[in-house]
Amino acid sequence: MKPALRLPVEAIAPGLHPLPPEAAAYATRVHRLGPGDPVVLFDPDRALEADAEIVEVGRRAVTVQVGALRPAARRPGREVTLLQGVGKGDKLDAIVRDATELGATRIVPVLCERSVARPDAARAARWRRIAVEAARQCGRGDAPVIAPPSSFAAAAREAASGDALRICLDPAADGPIGPSLAALGGRAVILMVGPEGGLTVDELAVAEAAGFTRVTLGQLVLRTETVCAAVLGAVLALAGP
Amino acid sequence: MKPALRLPVEAIAPGLHPLPPEAAAYATRVHRLGPGDPVVLFDPDRALEADAEIVEVGRRAVTVQVGALRPAARRPGREVTLLQGVGKGDKLDAIVRDATELGATRIVPVLCERSVARPDAARAARWRRIAVEAARQCGRGDAPVIAPPSSFAAAAREAASGDALRICLDPAADGPIGPSLAALGGRAVILMVGPEGGLTVDELAVAEAAGFTRVTLGQLVLRTETVCAAVLGAVLALAGP
Repeated sequence: MKPALRLPVEAIAPGLHPLPPEAAAYATRVHRLGPGDPVVLFDPDRALEADAEIVEVGRRAVTVQVGALRPAARRPGREVTLLQGVGKGDKLDAIVRDATELGATRIVPVLCERSVARPDAARAARWRRIAVEAARQCGRGDAPVIAPPSSFAAAAREAASGDALRICLDPAADGPIGPSLAALGGRAVILMVGPEGGLTVDELAVAEAAGFTRVTLGQLVLRTETVCAAVLGAVLALAGP
Repeated sequence: MKPALRLPVEAIAPGLHPLPPEAAAYATRVHRLGPGDPVVLFDPDRALEADAEIVEVGRRAVTVQVGALRPAARRPGREVTLLQGVGKGDKLDAIVRDATELGATRIVPVLCERSVARPDAARAARWRRIAVEAARQCGRGDAPVIAPPSSFAAAAREAASGDALRICLDPAADGPIGPSLAALGGRAVILMVGPEGGLTVDELAVAEAAGFTRVTLGQLVLRTETVCAAVLGAVLALAGP
């Protein structure tokens, strides 16, 4: 039996409610669901979910009967922050998707010296939609927070406090990432990845001053979008979810 | 100073030689190199490289003076085979690119029960070009072998012999991937990843009979292209290159 379709709905509550237009269209037009069909609603901000049943498909609204709320079954067990240098074009779209699947809980687009794009509010809203859609697809009951784009200095400053493993990927670093991850335990992870062209010498110095350890992942020069998936995969594999 | 442009050239040899047309166009039209400019040629099949200098840019050929051959400086230190279920559309293009950056040495496109596409020879040639180009970009001195598309049974049978860690990603498996990787040592890795929709119960049984251990990478359902990057990243991080 196929599992019930999952639909992201902000501020879900038990009882009879109309689905938001996007979820309604997706359930009834794409998946051809109708009255009596079960769905699972999840609230990506609060990490809550609920079983629900479609009770009416009207011309203007799709009404569901929502059951009791429960904590989302599957969500990351660790705080993982990705400080991602903003690159060209839509690279960050793919990175947000990968990072959501691989358990990032907070994504900060960072404007670096070598960042070309300067994302606007529409772009940030798009990343949010991508994260929620990726959460739906991979069965995750929450979505990562997408922070507003930040300057490099502000991102480093914000990352400097609290107990966390701080790692900064730098192909020119002396040491590999393995030993840092092996010593991770249950701690939070803050991962800094530069844009295409990498971080500058000045940025690397700021990162080190903020407590980041510079490490490599092998000896090859990876694309920025590959780094994210590879390192988050390593965090999942080495240290559990 | 920028490092010298790397150009893939099959069967390089010392002495005066014309560049292959694609490398010639890339060097002179895209990068505007001319006589006296240094380049590094690498032979992705033999993992050899050589310093070279452009000596003449003619209308029909670009001639280079090639120095002594040497083993490629950067290549994976471990045999890593990716048995990748063929999915829809051009997903395997991105997977070949990621896997090349992340150190796969052999990629076998596997036709699974849930594979939709049936790649033809043109597609296989395309994967080869993508692998060579990814090797050029990431500084790798070899390129992974792209095997001809294989049936699932044949791929499992071929993988069954020799000393290697055999892992099969299955979101329904009981155990996480971490312990398998932690016990890896210097051994070869053979990684089996299903297409969209995953491997069938029958295929999973064939894999287990061939010596594969079924493992999960976290509790979420990853896209097939995410699995490749995440697991190869974990292999690099946990066990060194």
